Amino acid sequence: MKKAVVLLSGGLDSTTVLAIAKAENYETYAISFDYGQRHRLELDSARKVAQTIGVLGHKIVRMDLRAIGGSALTDDIAVPKSRAEVEMEVGVPITYVPARNTIFLSYALAWAETLKTGDIFLGVNALDYSGYPDCRPEYIRAYESMANLATKEALEGEVKVVLHTPLIELTKAQIITRGKALGLDYGMTSSCYDPSSEGLPCLECDSCLLRAKGFFEAGEIDPLISAER
Amino acid sequence: MKKAVVLLSGGLDSTTVLAIAKAENYETYAISFDYGQRHRLELDSARKVAQTIGVLGHKIVRMDLRAIGGSALTDDIAVPKSRAEVEMEVGVPITYVPARNTIFLSYALAWAETLKTGDIFLGVNALDYSGYPDCRPEYIRAYESMANLATKEALEGEVKVVLHTPLIELTKAQIITRGKALGLDYGMTSSCYDPSSEGLPCLECDSCLLRAKGFFEAGEIDPLISAER
Repeated sequence: MKKAVVLLSGGLDSTTVLAIAKAENYETYAISFDYGQRHRLELDSARKVAQTIGVLGHKIVRMDLRAIGGSALTDDIAVPKSRAEVEMEVGVPITYVPARNTIFLSYALAWAETLKTGDIFLGVNALDYSGYPDCRPEYIRAYESMANLATKEALEGEVKVVLHTPLIELTKAQIITRGKALGLDYGMTSSCYDPSSEGLPCLECDSCLLRAKGFFEAGEIDPLISAER
Repeated sequence: MKKAVVLLSGGLDSTTVLAIAKAENYETYAISFDYGQRHRLELDSARKVAQTIGVLGHKIVRMDLRAIGGSALTDDIAVPKSRAEVEMEVGVPITYVPARNTIFLSYALAWAETLKTGDIFLGVNALDYSGYPDCRPEYIRAYESMANLATKEALEGEVKVVLHTPLIELTKAQIITRGKALGLDYGMTSSCYDPSSEGLPCLECDSCLLRAKGFFEAGEIDPLISAER
């Protein structure tokens, strides 16, 4: 069986990606990041998801991106609330974390190399997304080219690094439909950027709004909402 | 003045690069990594170097690459000693740390973005080097292409990411000659992969051997050796 490293935040997208990698018969190794995000609750979701779906290994890498700074997700900057506030932002939103996917992918690449595989799965999405530069297809292809020059295994021709992005051209509704077809329970995932201390989603941040739109358009009920409200 | 982020290990190469960046009139910000390396002594050197040469900021990012594994520099694998043992290794050496430069550069990129600069200096070298894949010019160019698609600042055209590698085509002897011309005291640097508990270089690992060869060919005396032996 082929091995794959899967970036797992504990959110809806990465959970669906993990299920897809399993359905494609990969032996899956999940990697999550404790980077000082204000929504660290998602790490509990990541643990639950990894255990429920079943992985051969799950690493939670601790790092302090707050030391780098510059984002509402890690710093003491307010997360924009309501569609109007979100849409008032021009260009890349304040919830963007500098070079986040570049850092995350680098750890995934290192782990993949020690596992002697080049298959890395991640849940980036270029449609219903927040406008982050490091979610675009051209970024993904450039990272792949770099990675194939970066590692010993790739240099020696043992592996070829392939970034699998099965969600990149799907709408949030299509992602949810795909996950439901794979039997996923989205009640174990967590999407909110700014959950309450009890772990309830705010329903107002960009991530909550995208999720709600996705469930609405998929004609599904979000188990997280129906259970908690 | 232009700002630059400089990767600083505390070794001979990165110390020379920091001096070059200063000589090119950059406001310098040094970044070092505490990655569980067995030669953590180099971090003391990095602090000394940053202070002596003078930087506007110095970040030491802690991360646990041992959790990823796969290198004699971080794991409980013996560092090869003597030229014969080093040369017995085929291909990429066991001291290679998986995706190390890719991870380091990603943090440098994140910090550069928050500083609103794209200038990053690093001391990779394609001549007198250890055969690491992530030190080669084609890797550096691929990283640069990726980085220019990765960040908000680059996407919005505010900055262009440039990886400065002033040592890439120099021999170790030429690097030392360049550093001496800039007035550097190499006594504050540290190169050994496997220093003694008193901080003395082993003089047998690949890094010590390359350093010794460099000083010999440059017709200089290594202050680290003359002071300690």
